[in-house]
Amino acid sequence: MTFREFYNAVLNANYTSDEEIAFSLTKVHFKKGEIITEYNQIEKQVYFINEGIVELTIKSYMTEKVIDFFFENEMVCALTSFLTQTPADVRLTALTDCEMEMVHHHELMNAYETGLDINKYGRIITEQAYLRKSNREKDFLCLTAEERYMKMFKTHNQYLHNIPVNKIAKYLGIHPESLSRIRAKLNS
Amino acid sequence: MTFREFYNAVLNANYTSDEEIAFSLTKVHFKKGEIITEYNQIEKQVYFINEGIVELTIKSYMTEKVIDFFFENEMVCALTSFLTQTPADVRLTALTDCEMEMVHHHELMNAYETGLDINKYGRIITEQAYLRKSNREKDFLCLTAEERYMKMFKTHNQYLHNIPVNKIAKYLGIHPESLSRIRAKLNS
Repeated sequence: MTFREFYNAVLNANYTSDEEIAFSLTKVHFKKGEIITEYNQIEKQVYFINEGIVELTIKSYMTEKVIDFFFENEMVCALTSFLTQTPADVRLTALTDCEMEMVHHHELMNAYETGLDINKYGRIITEQAYLRKSNREKDFLCLTAEERYMKMFKTHNQYLHNIPVNKIAKYLGIHPESLSRIRAKLNS
Repeated sequence: MTFREFYNAVLNANYTSDEEIAFSLTKVHFKKGEIITEYNQIEKQVYFINEGIVELTIKSYMTEKVIDFFFENEMVCALTSFLTQTPADVRLTALTDCEMEMVHHHELMNAYETGLDINKYGRIITEQAYLRKSNREKDFLCLTAEERYMKMFKTHNQYLHNIPVNKIAKYLGIHPESLSRIRAKLNS
C-alpha cells in the first residue's frame, strides 16, 4: 500500500495524486540492520512502511529492550522525540530491507497550521498510537508471557519468522529460554 | 481553570464564551469515592477536571492495579473505551470531591467532522496522552520504584497527601511496605 492509499483509507477521502496532499513524500530505502533513528538524535521524520519490519528499542541500564515492532502499512518514528523535538531515548532499526515514504517534521507542522484533513489524520493516527501503547501496557499488567506471545502470534504470524527469537523474547520481557519453552509447548 | 481557558491555552485561541465552542459543556460533580465510569461500561463522556483527583484502575487476575491519577486542569476518561466505543476494561473513581466539565462523545464526533480547531485540539491532547503513556512505559522499563516515586513526588507533591499510600504503592507496582521504606529513606 502507498501512503496516499493509506491516507485516503483513514480519512475516507479520495486524493488522486500525492501533489494534492499538503506535504511532500520522499521514498527512502533502508538495508536490513541499518539504523533509521539513533539514540539521542532528534527525530525529524515520520515514515510510512511500504514494505519491511522496523524495531524500536530502548536502553535500560546495561541492556537493551525491545518496545515494539512495526510492519507494512504502519506509520513509524521515534514518536516522543518527534512530538517534543528533544533527543530520542529510543533507536529505530530496519529488521529487514525496508521501503518507506518519509515526511519531514517541519512540513507536517506547516500542514497542521491550516489543514482540516491533515489534523483529522494526525488525530486519528495518534489515537491509534495511543491505543497500541495502552493495550501493550494492559497486556503487561494482565497477561502472562505465554498469553502475550499467543496474541502476537495471532496478529503477526506472517512476520514472526523474520524476527530473531532473542528479539521476540526481549519484546515479551522474558528470557529466550522461556520463549523456547512456550513455543515448544504450543507446537506439541 | 475552566475548560474554555484550557482550550484557549492549548490552541493559542481566544474564545470568549462557551457558546462559541463547537460542542456543549456540562458541569458535573462527583463525591469522594464515587465511580465515574464503571468496568464494562462504554465511555460516552470525556471530562475536564476543574478541581479534584481521579483514579484510573484495571482488574488484573484477582487484584486491582492503579494505572494513573489525573489532577486539576487535565482531561480524563476511559480513553480506550471512548475511542473504540467498546466496554471499558478500566474504572474511573473520584479520589476526592471533584468538579468537572463534561463533553458527550457524539457531540465531539460531530464537531470533529468539520471543525479545524477541535481537530487540532483533539490531536494535541491525544499527543499528550500518548506522551504520558509512553513516559510511564519507559519509567517502568528503565527506573527503579524509588526513582519512579521521586519523579511522582517532584511533579505532584502538592497532591500526594490526598492519595492513600496503598494506592500510590499500587500505581508504582510495589508493596505498601516497600513504599514505606522508600519514604522513610527519603525523609531521613
